[in-house]
Amino acid sequence: MSKFIIGVDLGGTNIKTAIVTEDKQVVARESRPTDAAAGPVAIMDLIAVAVHDLTRQQDINMEDVLAVGIGAPGPMNWQTGIVYSPPNLPGWSNVPLADEMSKRLNTPCYIDNDANVACFGEYWMGAGQGAESIIVFTLGTGVGGGIVLFNQLVRGIDGTAAELGHVKVQRDGRLCGCGARGCLEAYASVTGMVHTARDGWDNSHTTLKDLCEGDPEKITGKIIYKAAAAGDAYAAQVFQDTATWLGLGAASMVNALNPERIVLCGGMINAGELLFATVRKTVRENAFKVPADRCKILPAGLGEDSGVLGCAGCAFARYQEENS
Amino acid sequence: MSKFIIGVDLGGTNIKTAIVTEDKQVVARESRPTDAAAGPVAIMDLIAVAVHDLTRQQDINMEDVLAVGIGAPGPMNWQTGIVYSPPNLPGWSNVPLADEMSKRLNTPCYIDNDANVACFGEYWMGAGQGAESIIVFTLGTGVGGGIVLFNQLVRGIDGTAAELGHVKVQRDGRLCGCGARGCLEAYASVTGMVHTARDGWDNSHTTLKDLCEGDPEKITGKIIYKAAAAGDAYAAQVFQDTATWLGLGAASMVNALNPERIVLCGGMINAGELLFATVRKTVRENAFKVPADRCKILPAGLGEDSGVLGCAGCAFARYQEENS
Repeated sequence: MSKFIIGVDLGGTNIKTAIVTEDKQVVARESRPTDAAAGPVAIMDLIAVAVHDLTRQQDINMEDVLAVGIGAPGPMNWQTGIVYSPPNLPGWSNVPLADEMSKRLNTPCYIDNDANVACFGEYWMGAGQGAESIIVFTLGTGVGGGIVLFNQLVRGIDGTAAELGHVKVQRDGRLCGCGARGCLEAYASVTGMVHTARDGWDNSHTTLKDLCEGDPEKITGKIIYKAAAAGDAYAAQVFQDTATWLGLGAASMVNALNPERIVLCGGMINAGELLFATVRKTVRENAFKVPADRCKILPAGLGEDSGVLGCAGCAFARYQEENS
Repeated sequence: MSKFIIGVDLGGTNIKTAIVTEDKQVVARESRPTDAAAGPVAIMDLIAVAVHDLTRQQDINMEDVLAVGIGAPGPMNWQTGIVYSPPNLPGWSNVPLADEMSKRLNTPCYIDNDANVACFGEYWMGAGQGAESIIVFTLGTGVGGGIVLFNQLVRGIDGTAAELGHVKVQRDGRLCGCGARGCLEAYASVTGMVHTARDGWDNSHTTLKDLCEGDPEKITGKIIYKAAAAGDAYAAQVFQDTATWLGLGAASMVNALNPERIVLCGGMINAGELLFATVRKTVRENAFKVPADRCKILPAGLGEDSGVLGCAGCAFARYQEENS
């Protein structure tokens, strides 16, 4: 009989939980609010309750659960299982999350950062399934990244690898939130796209001005996409410019790592071809032919669930490695 | 008693051969001219003679040689052992180099491209020794690259990975030999540095004008370095600008892969601190603190021999993998 792995995606807003079998069947999933203000002990208790509730509903004994994987916001040490001080979990400081949860659940618990688990989810069960090398870009307020090579996450010697939003695409370019200039994130994130739309605002004829009541501070990614889809040339150009920057970052990774697939995640992928056609074209024009022809550029296959399912996948991989 | 591995670095000018023990002791090495015009059969015969001569001199029986690794210019298929059509080996077209040499030497032969073997040499016995992740930039006419992660070469799904000269550092930037714009190689190679020196030539006061008899076509990397070292401000600025571009490419790799070391190879590293101080500073300013603090940026430890010793190292690793 198959054993189970549990994924827990701990975000600032929701705690998502999923039960997955060894052969990748999703048995159950649920989501409940985080109550971030309650602090680490209350949240860890809440995670334990969520896990116990979900297993009980499915008549699953915790003895049949091989491992629990918890995805959390960084910075953290995935090996020691300690979460340092994530900005969107107030009151957390050097919390030994893996150990505390192992005690509460009496099961091996592993932690990984949220960008890595999302990448591993897509590799394990999503758009990267069947490939041994994938690169994930998560497009949101920032640009997150994940890299799987040789069928394993590239975490780096300190666990800080795959910061793909901070590869350089422009010397002395736009200031990035990280303090450096010319990072991919400064252009290809939703924030970067809004920045680009504001930059050209004064000299453009665009329905964005009506949609935002003349106030460039009201521009959002969704409004840009909506206007572009409705035929606004300026909005379409802003979107395409953003996708071109992303394509340059993707081309760098295609030339550097020759991966089988690149998977794009995050709300921006709802723009579909408006995004993908430009990214693919930019990669073709900027990477060598053999790796560019090889690399499929795909939307995430698991939608909002790549994180929670990736938590289970990461935990399963680590459990297997420790017990092989 | 220790067995031996033989490395053969096949270049357009010289064939270098080295005998190495399993525990990384270099027993013997030699170099002889390639006679590139003679074509593949004559060159393969020449390699066999070179290997037999060197083993005979050392009283080593070919039965005690575990494997022979041959580094050759790409493009090639490292798995099938076929060399396609390297520009600097005229007459070569789809040559089954590994099979042909295995027949001639009656020993398992493996091929790998010259950038990868140089990287593996530095990882195995050079400035990367003891690390499990290193990134190599080879600075010459172009910018070559090599990546070792998880103690193995990142070759990519088609063997084209680690083209680090073709990560993008500037959108719509300088035209690169690969046909794209804004590649690292267009700025950080010796060719790129000479290009930069010519770009500012007209408006600069510089001793380069005397050294090159007023002809910007006569600028070379060595002349720029010589002038910079002698105190020429323009030449120093050109050199520093080149090193800054390289630092941006290195910072991208530090953020993407969080490697333990970056190793710089090629003639340009003779400039020493003039190069390294700027590369290190640029990485510190453009990468996250934890991975930037971690990553040592070092000159190659094996000088001109990283290739031939890396050939032996690659062959040894592949032999071990096949026989484990």
